[in-house]
Amino acid sequence: MEWSVGVDIGATKTNIAAVGADGTLFQKKQKPSENNYQTFVTTIATTVQELVRDYSTKPLGVGVGVAGEVNARDGSVACVPNLDWHQLPLQADLEEQLQMPVKVLNDVRAAALAEWRYGAGKGSHHFACVFVGTGIGGGIVCNGQLLAGASNTAGELGHMVVYAEGRKCTCGSWGCMEAYAGGWAIAQQAQARESSLILKLAEGRKERITARIVIEAYRQGDSTAIEIIEQAKLALVSGTISIIHTLNPERVIFGGGIIQGCPEMVQWIDIAVRPRLLSTAAIPLTILPAKFVSDAGVIGAATAALPHEAVG
Amino acid sequence: MEWSVGVDIGATKTNIAAVGADGTLFQKKQKPSENNYQTFVTTIATTVQELVRDYSTKPLGVGVGVAGEVNARDGSVACVPNLDWHQLPLQADLEEQLQMPVKVLNDVRAAALAEWRYGAGKGSHHFACVFVGTGIGGGIVCNGQLLAGASNTAGELGHMVVYAEGRKCTCGSWGCMEAYAGGWAIAQQAQARESSLILKLAEGRKERITARIVIEAYRQGDSTAIEIIEQAKLALVSGTISIIHTLNPERVIFGGGIIQGCPEMVQWIDIAVRPRLLSTAAIPLTILPAKFVSDAGVIGAATAALPHEAVG
Repeated sequence: MEWSVGVDIGATKTNIAAVGADGTLFQKKQKPSENNYQTFVTTIATTVQELVRDYSTKPLGVGVGVAGEVNARDGSVACVPNLDWHQLPLQADLEEQLQMPVKVLNDVRAAALAEWRYGAGKGSHHFACVFVGTGIGGGIVCNGQLLAGASNTAGELGHMVVYAEGRKCTCGSWGCMEAYAGGWAIAQQAQARESSLILKLAEGRKERITARIVIEAYRQGDSTAIEIIEQAKLALVSGTISIIHTLNPERVIFGGGIIQGCPEMVQWIDIAVRPRLLSTAAIPLTILPAKFVSDAGVIGAATAALPHEAVG
Repeated sequence: MEWSVGVDIGATKTNIAAVGADGTLFQKKQKPSENNYQTFVTTIATTVQELVRDYSTKPLGVGVGVAGEVNARDGSVACVPNLDWHQLPLQADLEEQLQMPVKVLNDVRAAALAEWRYGAGKGSHHFACVFVGTGIGGGIVCNGQLLAGASNTAGELGHMVVYAEGRKCTCGSWGCMEAYAGGWAIAQQAQARESSLILKLAEGRKERITARIVIEAYRQGDSTAIEIIEQAKLALVSGTISIIHTLNPERVIFGGGIIQGCPEMVQWIDIAVRPRLLSTAAIPLTILPAKFVSDAGVIGAATAALPHEAVG
């Protein structure tokens, strides 16, 4: 049996899983994520070793997805904001503790790899996926290769500009797709406006307003929530048109928490995008939801560790 | 000596040139473009044969760039709007008349290939070029391959959306980068507004206002022209940020008639784009002008005909 280990280090919890070389998730363990790097690297290594003991064959490698910037050359992490990690040799440290090949990559790119190899992008040569969560990230496949770019930053689709003179984004720029359709932006816009229903759903406290609450208010017909969600949709539509006219993909897929909370968004985007495309770009195109709900990161990280995957 | 023939079929004139396998332009002939397809294919074939007689070795092939949609499978042209050509087997017809391998491709992609192989993009693995003329087109290199996309439509950068609720574009969509920064859009906006200087430069006739005249008025300090050019710049800046955050290229180059008329635009874009980029995307990036002025199309078409170039 060929298999590998996937590690998905999130802001609050870390998933560690045994995954078959065909993408099947065999077993998953969960640990709380820790800011203390040295301690947490040891926790990861110990958990991987426990997992390995359950199987009769050795894994082909260990893939690790992190929500931050990774140096493609050596798998060191430049920055993981949620854990306050900076300039740490994660790949080298885990290789030393585990005595196994380790591959560290960005968690969103790992999720894109899972969707491409085993999910909604399977079999496509030209493919983009957009994950709409608190922020917006993505992954791109061109000519049958997952794109890393010149400095491992390709696929930052949340920071495409959809309003040239638009809202300020957390990245320091403005008019970004994420500043309209990211979970933080949806919540922020609702906090800045008056809606008695949204406020009631947030138990009267503005700071408790989340994108989830705005979507709930939208479902109940709240006019403020409708405006905010419509604007998020228009931003996603605009960015998607830009992606398609740049890359001419066969498939664009949408995943992430906002899409899971509002799954009808995928069809709305399809309906709104299609008449605005150049006809030759529209012909080969399918827009569809991601296959994986929460395991794309861990499955993709494990996949990136397979020797035949050349992932940046 | 290894060489090939490049043919660049424009709206009014067609260039036919002998080009060395190192991109050197040896000789160029020019013919007026003709709407009559059968006659014009014969004119092209005759001119190519005249050119071939001047050299002691046979060319490696003939590359043909057309301003329209090309079917990558067989090099037939789906549509060349300026010549009113539709569904014509251009590659097969030229191969039959010439008894040589012929490769038909989109003219903008041919120009991108020339810039990548011999021009401002030389040596880069991740590269985008943006040609700003009457319309806006582009070309993309990912992982050292010129990108064709799923239906040979990749690089339609003029139709990225930069204003989600913006101006109507000729493509039927709205908010496109081209609808602000394409030559037609610059002229159209000036025609819709009142500027005595612009009108004077157009000899008092609104319909004679061109982008060139708007740029001239801009140089003379006309406030309407300044607004229009500033908006064109902001659209190009916004689209360029989207390109960079999608692809993470090493180089983005700008060419085409508008850039030639206003070459300082390239530095303006660089200055405006850089502080709005994610820092990891900014590090490897250079923004610079195209190398070729008017011969990129014919050199790129010739290059596409070389047997080792796998161009869609």
